[in-house]
Order: sequence, then structure tokens, then C-alpha cells
Amino acid sequence: MSITAPAGFRAAGVTAGLKASGKPDLALVVNDGPQHVGAAVFTSNRVVGAPVTWSRQVVADGVVNAVVLNSGGANVATGPEGFGHAHATAERAADLLGISAADVVVCSTGLIGVPLAADRLLAGLDVAAAALGTDGGEAAATAIMTTDTVAKTTHVPGAGWSVGGMAKGAGMLAPALATMLVVLTTDAVVDAATADAALRDAVGTTFDRIDSDGCMSTSDTVVLMSSGASGITPTPEDFAEAVRSACATLARALIADAEGSTHDIAVEVVGATDTGAAVAVARAVTRSNLFKAAMFGNDPNWGRIIAQVGTVPEDVAPFDPARLDVSINGLLICRAGGAHEDPAQLDLAADREVHVRIDLHAGDAAATVWTNDLSHAYVHENSAYST
Amino acid sequence: MSITAPAGFRAAGVTAGLKASGKPDLALVVNDGPQHVGAAVFTSNRVVGAPVTWSRQVVADGVVNAVVLNSGGANVATGPEGFGHAHATAERAADLLGISAADVVVCSTGLIGVPLAADRLLAGLDVAAAALGTDGGEAAATAIMTTDTVAKTTHVPGAGWSVGGMAKGAGMLAPALATMLVVLTTDAVVDAATADAALRDAVGTTFDRIDSDGCMSTSDTVVLMSSGASGITPTPEDFAEAVRSACATLARALIADAEGSTHDIAVEVVGATDTGAAVAVARAVTRSNLFKAAMFGNDPNWGRIIAQVGTVPEDVAPFDPARLDVSINGLLICRAGGAHEDPAQLDLAADREVHVRIDLHAGDAAATVWTNDLSHAYVHENSAYST
Repeated sequence: MSITAPAGFRAAGVTAGLKASGKPDLALVVNDGPQHVGAAVFTSNRVVGAPVTWSRQVVADGVVNAVVLNSGGANVATGPEGFGHAHATAERAADLLGISAADVVVCSTGLIGVPLAADRLLAGLDVAAAALGTDGGEAAATAIMTTDTVAKTTHVPGAGWSVGGMAKGAGMLAPALATMLVVLTTDAVVDAATADAALRDAVGTTFDRIDSDGCMSTSDTVVLMSSGASGITPTPEDFAEAVRSACATLARALIADAEGSTHDIAVEVVGATDTGAAVAVARAVTRSNLFKAAMFGNDPNWGRIIAQVGTVPEDVAPFDPARLDVSINGLLICRAGGAHEDPAQLDLAADREVHVRIDLHAGDAAATVWTNDLSHAYVHENSAYST
Repeated sequence: MSITAPAGFRAAGVTAGLKASGKPDLALVVNDGPQHVGAAVFTSNRVVGAPVTWSRQVVADGVVNAVVLNSGGANVATGPEGFGHAHATAERAADLLGISAADVVVCSTGLIGVPLAADRLLAGLDVAAAALGTDGGEAAATAIMTTDTVAKTTHVPGAGWSVGGMAKGAGMLAPALATMLVVLTTDAVVDAATADAALRDAVGTTFDRIDSDGCMSTSDTVVLMSSGASGITPTPEDFAEAVRSACATLARALIADAEGSTHDIAVEVVGATDTGAAVAVARAVTRSNLFKAAMFGNDPNWGRIIAQVGTVPEDVAPFDPARLDVSINGLLICRAGGAHEDPAQLDLAADREVHVRIDLHAGDAAATVWTNDLSHAYVHENSAYST
């Protein structure tokens, strides 16, 4: 059950020949309406791919009719020619579908600085358009995979309407800068403002809280389309919750499939003065190579955790270092800033998932950021990706 | 030529038994005067070791008579007992030297959260005091080594006076949070304010611009002592330059000895609006695991460089992404934000040192931050350190 589970959507995934492997590399998702509401969130990187520049314009009016996604080339740092390729992609899709190019979002993933094989992509679009079907969601999810080991899809049912989704990438999965592409579909009747608000809220507490390797992509795109085909208008709260649930499932799936990783690590910060403080502390820990390497070694090295906590400025996260508690998988190994239970009681090798809980004892706010461990396989893959 | 090269200093390095290996692990450096000016810079981490808490009080009055340094235990997250151990260390050194404990700086390095073997340390101090000599600089530099492969020392001659120095640690060298300990000595006649200003300026452009793995220590300490034994008062400018030179040499030596690394990487940012912007951009690149892994693979992946440049907020570093130039070892592989010379012309495997130059084309300011590559050996060492 994927992006074609909600009514009003067709999708396809085909091989355009962009990948040397010959695996599927081009996906097309079409919203057949009756409504064509669209919203999207893009990377906050100042260096962005041509598809991001193009697609920002597309979504500005809240209307999206289709999304074209390719793997096998990011179309980033490719200059005016690259923008031309993104534009031509939208034009060809529009011609094939009888819609306006200004309503076609384009997403690309792969190496940076390499020209897109635009001829192959455009020819592939003809094949994709012919292959469109209301059962094409899985094929589309497969075509956007890079080093993902499984296609990632989700479906959240509502009362007579639903939200579908697919995702690729994240962290070690996507050595070319952790590129994450996500398409969400719904047949709920929602207006553009409601869709935009629901998507931004959902991304802020899901995709924005996974951090596999700290590297921000130039191509991250999360796009939501509503067909309204169910004829049902959910409450904004119900709709937002369904979108959040779909994003949470996909975000968790990205971490779980992070290639080269041996652990999924939840860093939960509680007792913070506000959510921003909790996120800042959690993110500091998830970005520590020393902590992540220790996790790879199944070493519950809490010293590396509190040292990272201490790097967060006091105006960002007020707390007293002498009151810090740290638990791993429920065992309180650091209490009031010092050693407590014996970490040797922990067997981190037993499970893929590790739960780190840090109590700042400064307030009532909490947040969780997910990351992976730093492994030999991560170094290997990322030292050998483009050469 | 080390910390005992300037007149008025004695030092010793002995085995106290803190390290399981039986290697030297305790150093003592004494300023015999006639003046006892001291200045120090400490980690900005909010979680600090007991020795940092103690030593901040010691240097507050600008007077330092001696420094005790141990490897084999960081004395961090050890609570009131740990502070007691730092205090007792200073008291024992003071008794042995006939000085005040309030003038004894204490530095410790090793694992966090493990109680210091204070009895051994105190007994070792007796041995160290007996071994003090004006030729003890090398022994002291050896005793503060952890996984360093060479003792790191320097000596910068002035006109009748000089600056000596020793250092341990940094990045992969010091898996327990990159702890860096540095002692500088001089026989120049300087007052406390001049010494403090010179040291802060020097640290800001040297030790603050090496970043082997992005992890801030809980124990970093750089301490400068002046004996005034030369009787010569240099100009503040000459003195500051000598201190800066000594710090620059030691900082470069820390990067060069970063265990597990195969490359020393200078990330130079030019064309910035101000120095802060240049440092922010350089630091963003030096903290990218994807870039560092590519360097390990001798892969001149400039896409990962510009993607990191793009993560720096515009209010921190104004620049136009479409004007970015990137050179590696003098070859302009990215011009105006796009591919230029063929990176295949580069043979990064040929040299340990790699020079990345990023031109923002936004102003006249420049800065260089040094880092290392991300290697299998880094992951291995840091996943196996405490267990």
C-alpha cells in the first residue's frame, strides 16, 4: 500500500537508463484530481539542485498535478544547462499528461556535479507515462531507490480517506549527501493552506529529527498532493495527524535501512526548558563521531554523551551539568553528572535499536532525534562512491 | 628543545602507574622565576573535568608556579571526589615545591567517568619532584602522551628570550574526546595582561582552527608561564608573534600525528566578508563525514564540499552559491558553482597533505581550518577504546 492507495492517483516506475546497473531509475506520479492541491518542503541548503529551484516555483501556487523523480543523477551544480534539463523534464511530462509544466514537480538524486543524461530521461518519460496505473505505487517506490535495500512505502487510513507515501534515501543509504525524496498522496479534500501547514508540522517533528550523518542534502524534497477524490473533508487535526503518522513511519524506515549501519539510535532528551533546547541537545549527541563509533563498538560510553551535551551553549539549552542523568536502554549509567549503574550490564550487541535518554532536569520539554552508528561500512561506502 | 629551553624552568616526566601499559604518565613543570606570570585558555565545553574547574581558579590572579599533568585518567564526571583529587594533587605538588597550591595548575587526560587513581598520582608526584631538571622537557612531553606516536615540542627563539612548548592529543590521537593539553614557557619579561592577550590571540588562530573530528573535549587546557629569567622585555607584538608561532607549530603537529588518519587537510576559505564567515565555512567543510570519507578514498568529490558550504546560514557568511570556486591542490575543479577542470588529474594518494581552497567571491577575508580524513582506523580505534 503506497502512493496509489488513495483514490485519484496513478504512478509508474521504469528504467530510463540513468543508472549503469540497468535498474529502475525513473518514477512518475500523477494526481488525476478532481482537486490538485500541492505542498512541499525543500532542503534548507543554500546550494540546491536545479530540480529544487524549478520545483519551488511549481509549488508556490499550491497546485501540483504530477511529480517526476529520477535516481542516477542529482542534477546539482550543473549550471543553466541543468536547470534547462529540469525544465525540459517538466515540459515533457506536461505534454504527455495534457497538463501545464508549471504544475510538475521534479526531483533528482545521485552524484553532484555530473550532467544529467537528459535524453534518456525524456525518452524514459514516454515509457513511464504509458505505464501509469492505479497499482503503480510500488514500482515508483522501487525506481527512486539508490542504495536503499528495500522500497519504503506507507499507508495511513482515515475515515473514508487516507494518506499514502513513499521515500528513498537518508544518511548512509545515500552517500551523495543523504538525499531524501518523499512523495505523499491523499484523497482527502483539503485546501492548499491546510495541506501546507500539515506537511510543515509533520516534517518538523519527523524528517527533521533523523540525522544519520549530519550532512545536509542539496536535493531533499518532501511533496504532498491531494486529489480530493474521496469527497471527504477531514478535520485539519485528523488530517495533520495522518500526515504526521505517514512521515514518522517513512522517517523511521529511512534510519532502519541506513546502509552500513548496525544500530538505529534514538536520542531522547527530557527535562528541557523547551522543545528547541531538547532538539539542540539531542542533535549535538547524534552528530558526535566519537559517540557513534562507540555505538558501533557496542560500547555504552556515556562520557562521550555528556561531553557532547556540554557543547550546547547555555542560551540555547539551560541546564546544570552537575544534574545530568543518562540512561541507555533503561539503565541509569550516569546520575547527577557522574557514574551510576555499571554499563557492563548492557548488551548493546543484542538489538539493532538503542535508546539513549538524557534528562537535563531543567524543565518539562522533550524531543527525540534518531541517528545511526558510525561503522566501517559507512567509511567504506563513502570513500568509494564516485571513484 | 622544549618547555625547559627558556631559562627558569625545570620539568620531569615519570611513571606513576596510572596507565596499564606502564609507560610514563605524570609530568611536572615548575617555574623557578623570578617572575611567575601565568595565563591559560580552557575548553568552552560546559561539562568540564575537575582539573579544569580547579585550574580556572588558579590562573584567575595571573600567577602560576607549576603545572601537573597526567595521562591515564581524565578525572571528568567524577563528582566532589574528583575535585578533591585535583585539589590534593595541587596541594602535594605545592608541599614538595614549597609554593602555594593556589598557584598549581592541574591537567588530566584519559577516560571520562572513571575515578582517578589518586594514591598512585600523589606518590608519583614525589618521584617527579625528585626528578625535576632543566633538561626535563622531553621527558615531560613524553609523559603526557596518550595514543600520540611522537612527543610534540617546539621552541621559538626571540632576541635573548624564547618560547618553549609541548602538546599532546587532538582528534583521532585522543579518542577520549580529543583532549588537548599544551604547556608553553617563556623567559621573556611580560606582565599577566600581555601574556593573557598573546595566548588568547594565538589560540584563536591556531588550536581553535584544527578540528580533527568535531568533538569538543571536557579537558582542553593551554597554559603559558613566564619566568622573566632572561631579564628582557620584548615588545608585545614580538612576544605575541613568538607565542603564535609556537602554538601554530604544535597545532600542526597535532593534526600530523592524528592516529588512524591518512591525510592532513587544509580547508582555506578566501573571498569572505569577514574572518568569522571564512572560519564558519571552513569549519562546516571540516565537519562533513562525507567529505572526510571521500578524502580517505582519495576522491576529490567537490560536490560534497559545496554542499557543506551551502549549509552555512546567509547571515553568518554572505555569498552567492552560483559564484563558488573550489580548488584542490591548485586544480580549479569547480568554477562558478559548476564542474571545471577534470578531477581525475589529481592524485591525492601521492601526499599526506591536501589543500582545499574555496573562494566565496564575497569579500577579502580568509581563514584556514585543518582537519583529517575519516578512516577505517578512526572508526576502529574509537569503537574499541574503553571496552
